Parts: sequence; structure tokens; C-alpha cells
Amino acid sequence: MRRILIQLDTDPHPSTFDRVVAVDSDVEQLFSYGGVTCDNVEPLVHGAMFTRGPQDLKSTALFIGGSQVAAGEELLARVSKTFFGPVRCSVMMDSNGSNTTAAAAVLCAAKHLALKGVTAVILGGTGPVGQRAAQLLAQAGAHVRVGSRTADKAYKVCNEILETLGTGELTPIAAGSPAEVHLALEGAQLVIAAGAAGVELMSEGSWAGHRSLKVAIDLNAYPPAGIAGVGTMDKGSEKHGVIRYGAIGVGGLKMKIHKACIRKLFEQNDQILDTTAIYRVGQTLVS
Amino acid sequence: MRRILIQLDTDPHPSTFDRVVAVDSDVEQLFSYGGVTCDNVEPLVHGAMFTRGPQDLKSTALFIGGSQVAAGEELLARVSKTFFGPVRCSVMMDSNGSNTTAAAAVLCAAKHLALKGVTAVILGGTGPVGQRAAQLLAQAGAHVRVGSRTADKAYKVCNEILETLGTGELTPIAAGSPAEVHLALEGAQLVIAAGAAGVELMSEGSWAGHRSLKVAIDLNAYPPAGIAGVGTMDKGSEKHGVIRYGAIGVGGLKMKIHKACIRKLFEQNDQILDTTAIYRVGQTLVS
Amino acid sequence: MRRILIQLDTDPHPSTFDRVVAVDSDVEQLFSYGGVTCDNVEPLVHGAMFTRGPQDLKSTALFIGGSQVAAGEELLARVSKTFFGPVRCSVMMDSNGSNTTAAAAVLCAAKHLALKGVTAVILGGTGPVGQRAAQLLAQAGAHVRVGSRTADKAYKVCNEILETLGTGELTPIAAGSPAEVHLALEGAQLVIAAGAAGVELMSEGSWAGHRSLKVAIDLNAYPPAGIAGVGTMDKGSEKHGVIRYGAIGVGGLKMKIHKACIRKLFEQNDQILDTTAIYRVGQTLVS
Repeated sequence: MRRILIQLDTDPHPSTFDRVVAVDSDVEQLFSYGGVTCDNVEPLVHGAMFTRGPQDLKSTALFIGGSQVAAGEELLARVSKTFFGPVRCSVMMDSNGSNTTAAAAVLCAAKHLALKGVTAVILGGTGPVGQRAAQLLAQAGAHVRVGSRTADKAYKVCNEILETLGTGELTPIAAGSPAEVHLALEGAQLVIAAGAAGVELMSEGSWAGHRSLKVAIDLNAYPPAGIAGVGTMDKGSEKHGVIRYGAIGVGGLKMKIHKACIRKLFEQNDQILDTTAIYRVGQTLVS
Repeated sequence: MRRILIQLDTDPHPSTFDRVVAVDSDVEQLFSYGGVTCDNVEPLVHGAMFTRGPQDLKSTALFIGGSQVAAGEELLARVSKTFFGPVRCSVMMDSNGSNTTAAAAVLCAAKHLALKGVTAVILGGTGPVGQRAAQLLAQAGAHVRVGSRTADKAYKVCNEILETLGTGELTPIAAGSPAEVHLALEGAQLVIAAGAAGVELMSEGSWAGHRSLKVAIDLNAYPPAGIAGVGTMDKGSEKHGVIRYGAIGVGGLKMKIHKACIRKLFEQNDQILDTTAIYRVGQTLVS
Repeated sequence: MRRILIQLDTDPHPSTFDRVVAVDSDVEQLFSYGGVTCDNVEPLVHGAMFTRGPQDLKSTALFIGGSQVAAGEELLARVSKTFFGPVRCSVMMDSNGSNTTAAAAVLCAAKHLALKGVTAVILGGTGPVGQRAAQLLAQAGAHVRVGSRTADKAYKVCNEILETLGTGELTPIAAGSPAEVHLALEGAQLVIAAGAAGVELMSEGSWAGHRSLKVAIDLNAYPPAGIAGVGTMDKGSEKHGVIRYGAIGVGGLKMKIHKACIRKLFEQNDQILDTTAIYRVGQTLVS
């Protein structure tokens, strides 16, 4: 029974990135669809459900991707609702790499810090990667400060995460001005920048002065850096007593998590690999 | 020479169902196209015709599918016209599973009845599956009553089938009201319901009372059943002295026929697997 | 590391021709995209660049095709600009078969003529194949007469080729009327017709009378022939003392060049297989 991955991409052209990774994760047949929406996805899922016998359904899996994370989330909900009883296939959702990136960033931090009880700041905390990193850190028992240009937006995100988790220590913070950012880091051990590409969120002077800070992770791949003084290639090197990771430094682990998740899809037919499940796969890789 | 199947689908997204079946029928490379029409298909066929030498053309085949059966029929005609002389590839047409479903239904009936001389009623006989079942039964020598809500439509379909076959015993009947349906079954040994999904065409009381009836087949996969008292999972079980088949009960054989046809495409380069040819492949499987 | 070819096609449906050839050139995974433009190609190229390590980038390659040659040229320029430093993949451009056809035609001529110093006439010399044949002949040291219905257009094309090559002997000629065509052949050893399909560019009487003429190549695959008296199947046969090649006669070598180029893509990650590079691959096949 050949391993088939059905790529459901919300962009017009299905991502080549996700296709190459699928091939390199031993997928044998890749069916790639672009322009997938909640309105047209049902027959695509039915074709996966109704073609192979129960014992072989684990050899057909679904991958939801595309640059629009909110569209991917909606699609995952729609796909999950299409299944019934044991007639289902495993699904992974990683629109714009959001889940694998957030998981890799948090796991990089966890190499150097015991997350339980740590104080973490997420800059750009209302974007898809920032939200997911905040969720994973809160699940691990960290005190998470979710930063945004306006406290309102941050507050909304904290509430959403709390709804998902049921419990967690999340504090919305305004982190628009240099002074606010400086204040946000007070007493924090970890900062993760997950803002828009090419926007500096924090100056080097701002983080260099914080004695409590142990780890700074910048997920921005395009200059200027989100955290000045953290290079994209940084992978655990120290400056001002702070361990730094850049986008490419995190990228190796992100890619390993992505591949491990694709392989895991084919172990059983009833998995939903979302933020939490993808993080757990990552944990097995670093332990 | 790797076996290439070119899937020409008239829907925007090519069917995942047909793709999984192709993979499970040992196709090695599957080229899937959506949005294929008579206007844009020619270069797709030319690319199949002009890339491999005469002895290797049998390793490239075409599959015409999609939810719109009439569009698939037009496409098959257009594709057939594009070939010339020995420069051609084998083609299978199975839009909406119409040919494989009709073949499987008739073959299920043939397990229990000698079709020659039998009287068969097709409810929903003017839809794609119903028409095809009527044609196959007429070819096998049955007396076929083609039922529709209006006798006019049924009359037109009978004429079309007669034009295709040249000969055959086909009678158009109105089967819109319960009384008409009850009358239609008078003296019949076989009834096949091939109507729209989720529409009851016949009550249980209607068929339970007919002494002549031996086999009832309902191709409707979604509740309510097209023939009340026939379940989708029924596969040869009896009730009121009648052997019953439901959509899933027929589905196993349908799938086997589909796969056998895909494999057969690669035996020679000059086959057209249409309603009759697909039925003949089915006959080799059950005999 | 499986060999992945990413087909970037400027037509809505990616070419089946190029897909079959890719499969027959040992590509293991083929990602086919239609409707690719300069505006949407960047993420497709990024996905190729950022998924595999430096030593494995040679196992991912790009192919630019489609019926519109000018669109393919623009796309090649855009794709080349997307790469940076060593983070790149090899690319082949062969929109409408223009590069492989021109290379094959010139190599067929070279079997019978030393190209250096020869006088060659290109009829339909301003089309994509004609331009490319003119360029290759000029690079090989031939005196090339580029024929068009109007001398203006021919002049423009000669200038473009000179800009590309830096040097070369190219003469624009008007070749619209039979008298102009007859005059154009005066003293020429080679004529290649690369005009629109189904348009006769030269009568048999016109070329039969030229003593200097040694080789006549007609790349038109649909009747009437571009050069009357040259059949599509001609492959080196003589008439009136002239060696003749038709479209199918040239096609075998064209196909070998196409396949050899696809295979060559996977030898290193930094190749651009354009007109000149594709011709060089062809030279290694015929020598």
C-alpha cells in the first residue's frame, strides 16, 4: 500500500516547500491541490476516506498548508468535521510553517531553560507563530507575556489561548515603543521575536542590559533582524551573556520536526497533528 | 517504460478518489488535470501521443473523470477524434463512477438471474448510471423498463440507447407516483434504483408485494434509501424473498472493476474503455 | 535524495509533453505548475532553494516551459534573479520546444556541412525557433541571413542576437515574396524554415534551382510543408542534390537533446540550460 499524502493548500499554487519536505519524508505519492477552501474541500476528503479499506486508511494522509494561517485553521476544522467514526485519515496542519516553527523555537529555548516557571516574552505575539509559541510555553508552565503594538490585541490573543488550554499564565502587554519593550523584558529569562519580516522589534541595547535574560530567539529571516544583535545563523552562541538563536539556527530543528510529523501521519489513521501534537513530536526528537 | 496515467477531470480539482484508485492499480506516474474541457484538451492529448515510440505508447494512458457525466462523454468523443491511425493511447471514461457503478450493479444482478429474457426495471433510469445500467441489461437480452418521473424523458433515453445498440427491448415508463412505481414492477424480476442521492423512489410495501421480484439493487449511498428496506451495506441478503444490494454492497465489485480497467489500459494502446468495455472487464472478474 | 523536477509552465495546464519527457529522463518526482508568471514564481523558487542542504540542491531542478516563448524567457530571467550565491538550483528553459528544436536543426545541418563560413538562410527567422537557430549558426561562425516578411523585423532580430553574442555575421533580409525568397538563397548552402505551422514559405522550384544549396530543413510539422518538397519524415534523404530534413526527421535528435538536458540538470545545482547550453549538450550527443 503506497503512502499517499494529499496536500490541501489554501494558496493558488501549492507550496513547493511543503512538497519537497513531503518527498524527503518518504511520501511515495503526493497529490497537490491549490486554491482549497472550506467550500470545495469535502469531495477531496471523501476521496481519501472511501478508497481504501479500514486497515489501509493509515496509508493515506492529509496535509493542510498555505501562506494564510487563519484559512488553514478553518480548513482543518472543516476537514475534521468531514470524517465520521473510524472512516478518517490523519491530518497535519502547518500553514506558513507556523506550527513547526513555534515548536522548534520553544524547543530551542528548552535546551537552555526549564520552561516551567520561567518568564517568557513574545514580541509579535499576536501573529500565527507568536500565538503558537505563547500557547506552547503556557502549556509548559511558563509565565508568558504576550506583546503586541496595542495591549488590546494582545489581550484578545491571551484569551483565545486560555480558551484553548483551559488554564495558563498569560499576560497581555503593549510592546510598541522602545520603552515598552524594555519594560516588558524586566525579569524575563526568554524573549522570542515572531513579528513581521524585516521589522526591528528590539534594539541590542534594550536586551543587553537585562541581567535576567538567558535566551533570545529571533524568527525573522530577512534583514533587519527582529532582535538587533541576533543573526539569522545564530544557533546557541552567546553575546552579553545571552544565548541567541536566529531563523536559520532554529530552521534545522523545524525541518526535522516537519519531516518527523509527515512520517508519523502514516502510523495510524486517526491523528490530528496540530500545534500541541507537533510540539510533542518535536520533544521526542530533542530528548 | 514507466506507466503514466493522464487524468483529465472536468471539475476544477481532479478527483482524489480516482487518484487513489489509480495509485492502487499500479500506475507509476499520475498526471492530474482539473478544469479540462473540449476546448483545452487537445494539447494534453498531443503530449501523450508524440512523446513515446509506437511500441511504448501502451505505457501512456488517459482517464476521463469528474462529477459531470455529460461533460465527460463529450470529452471522450473529443479525445478519440484527436488520435490518428496508430498514434493513440488507451482511454477509460468513468465520470462520477457511472460506468463502473452500472457495470457492478448489473453484474450483481447477474449472479442471481440469467439476464437474457429477464424483465428489469430501472428507477431513475434517465440519470447517467440508470441509462448505463439500462444499456447493459438490454445488451444482455433483458426486457428493460426505463423509469422516469415523466414518460417523455424516459422515451428519449430509450431511443438514445437503441441508437447506440442498434437493437434491444426497451420500454419507457412513467414512474413518478407510488401507483406508477407499483405498476412498473408488475412481472419484473429485477429492479435497480439509480436516482438522485437521498430521494426515496419506492416504499418497502411497494416491492414486498411483487411475487415475481427476485433482486432489488439500490445505488443510493445517502439516506433515505432509494428503495426503502434496502440498506447501503446489503450484499445479497434476502427480505420478503428478494435478494438485496445497497451502494456499499455493490461498491466492492465496482472498485475491483475500476482497478482492473486501469490495469487493462496498459496492455495495448488502442482501447476505449467505455460502458460496454468496462462491463466486459467486470464479466472476467466475476466468472 | 530523490530527483525532483519543478515544472514551471506559463500555460494554464502544464504541458503533458514535457511531463512525459521528464518521466522518461529518470526524474523521480515531478511537481507541475500551470499559470506561472513573474509575479507568482518567487515562492515556488524559494521552496526549491530552502528545503535541501547545499550538497543536495543538485537533486532539485527547475524546468520552464509553455507555449509562449517570450513569457518563458521573462520567467527564466526572474527565476535566475531569485537565486543568491550558492543557494540555487539548475534550470532548463525550453518553452514550446524552441531551444531543443533549434539545437537539433542546427546539429542536423552540421552533420553535412562545416558550419564555420557557411552561408545559411533562416526563413521565418524572427520566430522563437528561427531566432535561436540564427543565433546558434552565427555562434558557429556561419554567415546568417535572417529572413522575415519585412526587413524591419529581421533587422531588429539580428541586432538582438548581436547584443547577446557580442559578435557574429548576421544579415536581415526581406523574404516575403517568391522572388525575395529565391534571391535570399543565392549562394547559400543551408536553408532552415522555421515559420508558422501550415504556411508554405518556399516552393520546390525555388530551391531546386540553386546549385550552392546542400541542406534544406523544414521544421513545420503540419501540412502544407514550409519548404515544398521536404516531407516531415525526411531525415537526410536527397532530392535535386539537396539533403532534406523534416520536423519528424529532426524530432528524434530533438527528443534526445531534451532528455539529456533533463538528466544534466541533476549533475550540479548551478546550471542555466538556455539556447547555447542546450546546443552544447546536443553536440556531445552527435559527436
